[in-house]
Amino acid sequence: MSALDHLSDESAPRRPQSTSKVTVVTVEGEARRRRSDRLTTEEPLEIQLEGPGMEQRSVAVTMRTPGNDFELAVGFLHTEGVIAGQEDVASVRYCAVPREEQHYNVVSVTVTRPLEFTPQRNFYATSSCGVCGKASLDAIEVRCAPVGPGPVVEPAAITAMPDALRAAQRVFERTGGLHAAALFDTSGKLVAVREDVGRHNAVDKLVGAELLAGHLPLSDSVLLVSGRSSFEIVQKAAIAGIPIIAAVSAPSSLAVDAARRFGITLIGFLRGKRFNVYTGAERIADT
Amino acid sequence: MSALDHLSDESAPRRPQSTSKVTVVTVEGEARRRRSDRLTTEEPLEIQLEGPGMEQRSVAVTMRTPGNDFELAVGFLHTEGVIAGQEDVASVRYCAVPREEQHYNVVSVTVTRPLEFTPQRNFYATSSCGVCGKASLDAIEVRCAPVGPGPVVEPAAITAMPDALRAAQRVFERTGGLHAAALFDTSGKLVAVREDVGRHNAVDKLVGAELLAGHLPLSDSVLLVSGRSSFEIVQKAAIAGIPIIAAVSAPSSLAVDAARRFGITLIGFLRGKRFNVYTGAERIADT
Repeated sequence: MSALDHLSDESAPRRPQSTSKVTVVTVEGEARRRRSDRLTTEEPLEIQLEGPGMEQRSVAVTMRTPGNDFELAVGFLHTEGVIAGQEDVASVRYCAVPREEQHYNVVSVTVTRPLEFTPQRNFYATSSCGVCGKASLDAIEVRCAPVGPGPVVEPAAITAMPDALRAAQRVFERTGGLHAAALFDTSGKLVAVREDVGRHNAVDKLVGAELLAGHLPLSDSVLLVSGRSSFEIVQKAAIAGIPIIAAVSAPSSLAVDAARRFGITLIGFLRGKRFNVYTGAERIADT
Repeated sequence: MSALDHLSDESAPRRPQSTSKVTVVTVEGEARRRRSDRLTTEEPLEIQLEGPGMEQRSVAVTMRTPGNDFELAVGFLHTEGVIAGQEDVASVRYCAVPREEQHYNVVSVTVTRPLEFTPQRNFYATSSCGVCGKASLDAIEVRCAPVGPGPVVEPAAITAMPDALRAAQRVFERTGGLHAAALFDTSGKLVAVREDVGRHNAVDKLVGAELLAGHLPLSDSVLLVSGRSSFEIVQKAAIAGIPIIAAVSAPSSLAVDAARRFGITLIGFLRGKRFNVYTGAERIADT
């Protein structure tokens, strides 16, 4: 039975939705107007791991927007260095828990082989880093497939990406409360979009979907994120083999350091016909 | 010796700066322009705890923008429920570590009494929550001072806050890469501003500064955050006793649930002369 067969579990009843209804009072000067509104749902997801010779254990808890939970769990385990690829995943399922309301907030990934898994790494998982930025970069470098010299992308393909992302976004338009991440091929064609209250979760959902489809490493892909790029985003992209990252807003200093170290092209302030290239400018075509 | 005496340690040489210089290539059509740019610095900070009858131990690692590190460490320990107030803090210092370049990335807080400290809580610290949203809400409720019926704030005081925040921000204007959090009194007067790559860190820096100054609980304060409000922000504000939270953008569903539960007024989409009130509308004056 492949990992994908289990994805149908996600269609079971009473799943939390990606948006929630609330009543809100809009204040404008002396006017008060009561109306119904939609917000992005935020709920905790516990990711558990089990497999041959391993006791079931909790790996992490992340606050996320429900939806694509199996992809999120698998993507997280990959980008945090716990599983190497599709061949490691035997199955993914929601966990029955005593308080039924939490049923859809616990996902268990069963792996096909005993995995090396250090609780120390685990401890730091949600902050995405050990104490020393440099030590953490070393650790990621060991796990990453070397990023080759290609691909080369046309500037016009890059500047068209934010519009394609916005056109594909579903939840954001309604709630204004989400990060989005999208994967494009090197011609600028949109491959997939995922959304989440956490920017790193949106990337993990994308990577998890591609892992489950057997498409890793993503060496002919461009990752676009709707906000800023942090160290964590670059780290996750590096492990998935993504050679080009573009962000609508600014990168952090450590995002640039990490991209340089891993040979990743890092683009920021992608707005209108213009963008900044912080590292790896050789992948931008000289039209 | 008071905690504040140690803050002078922060002026020691070779501290990381809150912005970093990079060279960037700006691409616009066929034009390529190489120039110097400034980015927000992102570096890991390890927070350690020591005290009577306790071995020195690592509590958390968070990616943060250097600056106000002692406030961040103390604020984090308070809003995560480890220390109760100023009286728990004996001293705060940067830790000497073998690799000197990391000296300013490790802060140790010495406490005045043995503290209850569960590694399980610790494990979940950076995701701000146990597996179950409800269980986590229960835990916070136990730790929080009850939020009283007041204060009442004029709408005009609230709508003036984003401009006051922007006027006070230093780093953001230069890099476009930061979250800001500000504390106002109930007349709308700005008390303090802190900035960070992580929105929760900006709040922890604010709370830590007020804790070290002996101003907790912050029961006559309004917290303004530059972006969205998440469960984590509401949780931290509740523990610090803040009765009103305003955000420039949307709240998440769990932020609204938590604010309702703790009796906090939660404001979102604070833009121009208008804002939405999700919970606790009785604290907005009926002008």
